[in-house]
Amino acid sequence: MSSNSNNEIQEKMQNHLDNLTKPVGSLGKLEEYAMKMARIQNKVPPIIEKKAVYVIAGDHGINTSGVSMFPSEVTPQMVMNFVSGGAGINVLANHCGFEVKAVDAGVAADFDNPGIIDCKVAKGTKNFHEEEAMSDSELEKCLENGKRLAKSAVADGYQLTALGDMGISNTSSAAAMVVAAGLEADSIIDKGTGISDELLEKKRRIILESILKHAPYSGPMDIMRKLGGFELCTMAGFILGLKGRGVACMIDGFPVTSGAYMAWLIDPSVSDYLFAGHKSKVKGHKVMLDAMGLEPIVDFNMRLGEGTGAVIGGFMVELGVRISREMASFASAGVTNVDNEEAY
Amino acid sequence: MSSNSNNEIQEKMQNHLDNLTKPVGSLGKLEEYAMKMARIQNKVPPIIEKKAVYVIAGDHGINTSGVSMFPSEVTPQMVMNFVSGGAGINVLANHCGFEVKAVDAGVAADFDNPGIIDCKVAKGTKNFHEEEAMSDSELEKCLENGKRLAKSAVADGYQLTALGDMGISNTSSAAAMVVAAGLEADSIIDKGTGISDELLEKKRRIILESILKHAPYSGPMDIMRKLGGFELCTMAGFILGLKGRGVACMIDGFPVTSGAYMAWLIDPSVSDYLFAGHKSKVKGHKVMLDAMGLEPIVDFNMRLGEGTGAVIGGFMVELGVRISREMASFASAGVTNVDNEEAY
Repeated sequence: MSSNSNNEIQEKMQNHLDNLTKPVGSLGKLEEYAMKMARIQNKVPPIIEKKAVYVIAGDHGINTSGVSMFPSEVTPQMVMNFVSGGAGINVLANHCGFEVKAVDAGVAADFDNPGIIDCKVAKGTKNFHEEEAMSDSELEKCLENGKRLAKSAVADGYQLTALGDMGISNTSSAAAMVVAAGLEADSIIDKGTGISDELLEKKRRIILESILKHAPYSGPMDIMRKLGGFELCTMAGFILGLKGRGVACMIDGFPVTSGAYMAWLIDPSVSDYLFAGHKSKVKGHKVMLDAMGLEPIVDFNMRLGEGTGAVIGGFMVELGVRISREMASFASAGVTNVDNEEAY
Repeated sequence: MSSNSNNEIQEKMQNHLDNLTKPVGSLGKLEEYAMKMARIQNKVPPIIEKKAVYVIAGDHGINTSGVSMFPSEVTPQMVMNFVSGGAGINVLANHCGFEVKAVDAGVAADFDNPGIIDCKVAKGTKNFHEEEAMSDSELEKCLENGKRLAKSAVADGYQLTALGDMGISNTSSAAAMVVAAGLEADSIIDKGTGISDELLEKKRRIILESILKHAPYSGPMDIMRKLGGFELCTMAGFILGLKGRGVACMIDGFPVTSGAYMAWLIDPSVSDYLFAGHKSKVKGHKVMLDAMGLEPIVDFNMRLGEGTGAVIGGFMVELGVRISREMASFASAGVTNVDNEEAY
């Protein structure tokens, strides 16, 4: 889209919003979300009728170094929980109007379940503290799988997508990638509630040793290959694959946002169609959002992942879009207008 | 409810939340909202199946002093917009699952519409810059009407209620009441977007002169009578009327919160069953919320009123309740638990 046509859409949408029965701008950020959707869809008013959250799962070799309290077996158990509808993301997605798509990008278990989208690259990455997390062809597969998922989301008519993650130890992979990419370690590697000082120290040491071990890096793809996770790289492919499709994507917490950050390093224009669903309790999350120029929609102190923050934020984007589609204008409702921004 | 039984409920609810398939506490504020609902309903898990927003309208004599850009005729026009479904609150309530109840507490127009709940005290208050806003019996009627509405909300099975306002110049009445009650004028009387410096100066002067004119005040009821609005006093009655009924109430922006603040001065225990839906763009709003110990759920820079922030916050409270009712437990989902607060 040329910036000219985008300016026209923006002006047309602003006029549309300002004629609705409310003081100008009085719905604040809801109006901003609707405006961004109008730009993404090149449509006034924009529309959201179908939404899906892709919860992408993978296992991590680094878990054998003991950086998490949870064993890797929890990853496939939670994938089955997504399929049977009992996880947090199921409850929130259901109530926020998102379909849940469980995606296996590289879980260390065999599934035989038609409810799981098969994008398995391998049964977990290698331990990046010892060797490169994945091969060139494995990274290529992740990106291709992500782009394929994006293409099918568009074909299936979803106007709003969301990304969620599941993968024991994936915060270690996420932190390693973005620190290797230049973000400051102390602002990224966080304590998080409940982790002991001792375990945090170990996690930090392992991440920093791993980054040094694989240096230098030739660019974001090289970083993803050496330190990434299958689910995180598949998310990056998904986001890159949405470019120019007129479909928006809600990102979630720390792991999903690390995937988005790598996609953004490859192509900064992705932030034009991304929304940050929430601000996670994990401190490094906000650092990445700031870098990409994305403002989180809600801040509920959440740190569950699975796309839980993404679908809540997505509901808010939809509220803005519905305001722009469903409210009466001053003329249609017979309400006296005042050409001023004063609130009543 | 004795504090003992409330402590028992809290402990039972905490155990319930901690057995769901997520790291302990990882749904942050959603869990806190569910906890507060459990305390209000004295039930584990709590339940929300029916929600209604009461949009209460009234006119204000002070508008003839020129403190708003909008003419009073907009109040009845907007009430008709609520009834025909075209206002911002209709769109948001519909999408957030709230029924809309339009209430005439004292609009300066005749309605003949079965869709409007008739609680009309008079056709607008007197101009409090010149005389007392209402009589003793009018204030009494407002409080009785509010309590009657609360009783019918309980009888109709709404577990979650919300309050919205409509009334040209009601921010002047709201500000006058809470400044007369002791909040600092400079922290309450706000510029707001779009109002000119000149008009703000006039609004401030009129409010302060009015407060001095009617001093001294014997208590909150005396303040409400001299400076209040019919819709604001009806809201105070509604909130007081919910006490001990096991039903929660979402409050909205500056006008609704001024009504809640007066109710809280009369009985501080009302904050036990109030939630602050959002943080309004009007600066004095947060001052009142802080005094009542209520933390706003979202912050979208909104300043529309009508209950728009209340229903959005109410949707979030319901999300928390649904999490507590609908998520699988570690045992039921066959997911390995770790007795630790570490996030995966």
